[in-house]
Amino acid sequence: MKRRILVIGGLAAGPSAASKAKRVNPDAEVILFEQGEYISYGICELPYYIAGIIKDRQKLIVYTPDELKEKKGVDVRIFHRVEEIVPVQKKILVQSLDKNETQEYKYDKLILAIGSASRRLSLDGEDARNVFFVKSLVDGYKIKEFIEQEHPRKAIIIGGGYIGMEIAEALTCQGIETTILHRSELPMAGLELETRQAVKEELIRHYVNFVHNTVTRSLSKDGSAPYGFSRVRQVITSKGAYETDLLILSLGVEPRVDLAKDANLALGTTGAIKVDEKQLTSNDNIYAAGDCAEIKNLVSNRSMYLPLATVGSKAAWVAGENAAGGSATFKGGIRAIAVKVFDLEVAQVGLSSEEAKNAGYGVVTEIITGSSKVAIMPDNRKITIKIILDKKSKRLLGANVFGADGAVHRANVLAVAIQHKLTVDQVSQLDLAYAPPFSPLWDAVLIAANVAKRQWK
Amino acid sequence: MKRRILVIGGLAAGPSAASKAKRVNPDAEVILFEQGEYISYGICELPYYIAGIIKDRQKLIVYTPDELKEKKGVDVRIFHRVEEIVPVQKKILVQSLDKNETQEYKYDKLILAIGSASRRLSLDGEDARNVFFVKSLVDGYKIKEFIEQEHPRKAIIIGGGYIGMEIAEALTCQGIETTILHRSELPMAGLELETRQAVKEELIRHYVNFVHNTVTRSLSKDGSAPYGFSRVRQVITSKGAYETDLLILSLGVEPRVDLAKDANLALGTTGAIKVDEKQLTSNDNIYAAGDCAEIKNLVSNRSMYLPLATVGSKAAWVAGENAAGGSATFKGGIRAIAVKVFDLEVAQVGLSSEEAKNAGYGVVTEIITGSSKVAIMPDNRKITIKIILDKKSKRLLGANVFGADGAVHRANVLAVAIQHKLTVDQVSQLDLAYAPPFSPLWDAVLIAANVAKRQWK
Repeated sequence: MKRRILVIGGLAAGPSAASKAKRVNPDAEVILFEQGEYISYGICELPYYIAGIIKDRQKLIVYTPDELKEKKGVDVRIFHRVEEIVPVQKKILVQSLDKNETQEYKYDKLILAIGSASRRLSLDGEDARNVFFVKSLVDGYKIKEFIEQEHPRKAIIIGGGYIGMEIAEALTCQGIETTILHRSELPMAGLELETRQAVKEELIRHYVNFVHNTVTRSLSKDGSAPYGFSRVRQVITSKGAYETDLLILSLGVEPRVDLAKDANLALGTTGAIKVDEKQLTSNDNIYAAGDCAEIKNLVSNRSMYLPLATVGSKAAWVAGENAAGGSATFKGGIRAIAVKVFDLEVAQVGLSSEEAKNAGYGVVTEIITGSSKVAIMPDNRKITIKIILDKKSKRLLGANVFGADGAVHRANVLAVAIQHKLTVDQVSQLDLAYAPPFSPLWDAVLIAANVAKRQWK
Repeated sequence: MKRRILVIGGLAAGPSAASKAKRVNPDAEVILFEQGEYISYGICELPYYIAGIIKDRQKLIVYTPDELKEKKGVDVRIFHRVEEIVPVQKKILVQSLDKNETQEYKYDKLILAIGSASRRLSLDGEDARNVFFVKSLVDGYKIKEFIEQEHPRKAIIIGGGYIGMEIAEALTCQGIETTILHRSELPMAGLELETRQAVKEELIRHYVNFVHNTVTRSLSKDGSAPYGFSRVRQVITSKGAYETDLLILSLGVEPRVDLAKDANLALGTTGAIKVDEKQLTSNDNIYAAGDCAEIKNLVSNRSMYLPLATVGSKAAWVAGENAAGGSATFKGGIRAIAVKVFDLEVAQVGLSSEEAKNAGYGVVTEIITGSSKVAIMPDNRKITIKIILDKKSKRLLGANVFGADGAVHRANVLAVAIQHKLTVDQVSQLDLAYAPPFSPLWDAVLIAANVAKRQWK
């Protein structure tokens, strides 16, 4: 009998896992369920669509349901919401939203790619027509349409994480005066203080109003229409009221785990679905991957919640391959994050200095500023690198890199070093390709290691 | 008594070694001898000075003799040519070119940083006034002056290595119609065929006339004046005569070893000075570093001759530290080369497929073309990666990367993987930072490894 593999979730991990499963086992029947209209799209690209850099909204879609069927052999059911998993009977209950009826589907293997949900303010007004999350393709379409049709002059973004940064740039590109309301002193919690300070300065340099240490108390709407038809006109905060035409909520995400919890699948300490190296959950026939599942941090060897496409897509392949009868493993990630904030490239790889301390390491840090090219090349820019090291083993645990030209790629050189447990001495001896248009003879990566080494002398 | 450290050679490795020696042992007396007028300059930057990108010729100089004395405590003697090393008496004989007299200097430790010499055609006319090498600061100054004063319309470069590529771009930048005469079918011997083909196409795209499989037979001068006052007007080759106003010879370099040979220091199989991990020659009091010494290839574990500043500068630090009484080691390099050819970034890291075969590996290669950014970003460019793997161990042995945007930095990610002996599976599992402006979700580095893996299935 044919193996039947069901996949829940159509954004990124779901289609990846489903396609992989079908490729590994072409005889399997693979069905993917998605509650919305769209599957398989580039969510990371939304800020660049909103900014007007990517112009054609169709291009955000990687595969339509028909294409996924035709090119990958995956049967796709959009507008199908999975209501319940019944593990003992190896079946799921699915409501088709168009027909409003519930059907049962039996499975041999089930893959959960149910993603994450935006954190909410839980304040009245969050559903007003000028309030948006940045979580789905539809969110992106709506924001763009709103901008094109209503020409907002002022926007507020609540939340100064990396999505907040990208959207601030996108809105500024569209000529909208943008304010970020953030709960902490500096944007981008989790990065090093020096990096966060540089990000804040970059925002200010581009006329983004960054309001720090601010708690949103309420949203004030115009007129008396219900919120869905009205607009938020003022955001009332601990620092006073801010007028706005457009409100973006980027408060971070949480793993979606309701279906998993109801099916008694184990959750990890992070609150996300617990999986092993094969992406298997606590049930032998159910895999999970993507934003709903936790992953192993290869630096600290602890579980972490890291809702990023880079690790999610790798985990999804493994889930797909194993659901199809294969034997693949996903070891985890170091956490590698890149974000462009106007002209500043920002990257974090591995542990932060605070995390390293909390994990019990004796932490040594070094921060240096070098050049992106040979310093006498006219288009040379600054690159700052902070490295985080273990005093005892001299191992590189993490790094932040920021600058205008090649910061992220340099972070990736360090990412390999972190993932493979190189010491500061080994980093200082890396043989890297150099020519004046690409880096100085002593690249910032090497300078950082060489300077840090002195702390052991 | 004070330790006396003598350093021979002032370009790059010499000043680095001397400065390091003085820093490690501030009590030591450190004297550096240079036969020319200039020390410590950026030779790699010459093409960008000739192109007019770096405008101020003073900026090419990192330290003047006075600055090296003042800032690093190194005593510098320019216009001093070392004639002989007398190891048994731990002394050198030095001719001061300004006074034309020979002096003796005793040493406790001696560092040879005597560099390399340009290969020559050994044809009459090589010393004509419009014929130049690209080997020293003075060469760079002379070429630039010649261009500014004599406005050559046509130039010929003999030699299609990486210096030839950089000079072709520089001359084209100056509006000079440029022809490269090269002995092989494709430029840049040592790179993979696909890379060399791409480089050739880039030359042609920028109207450089690339003449392949060509042997230069003679140089034909104008008038009857001695060559030093006359010009070469025609280069006579196996493919006919080529007219020119300016002739650049970039035929590669050979290690300078005469002083070492005369002092009975051992040379390696490459013909360069043999050194150990401490940069010590076969004489216990003499170190060598830079273009005159060989280094260990960390991939093949064989000696190689690699006259590059990246490895030379690291070796120089080690020579300086050890000459000063320290105990540093330089393990070697993988060979990491980067060159910009007009709009194409080109990098080679580790072994070529041919070298890998010759070293006895069962060679597996894979070549893929990816995007420099998310493919729907409008300024996305192509990146091609060829990886060279060992069939048995699945180890990454080498890579070529070329493309218009970020090729060299990607090669450096692979450089770390090569230096630390990662397998193709490990490369495919690298956790790299990603955002749409910096790379696709699956960067070309990851795609190359993932596609290559299929060859083991």
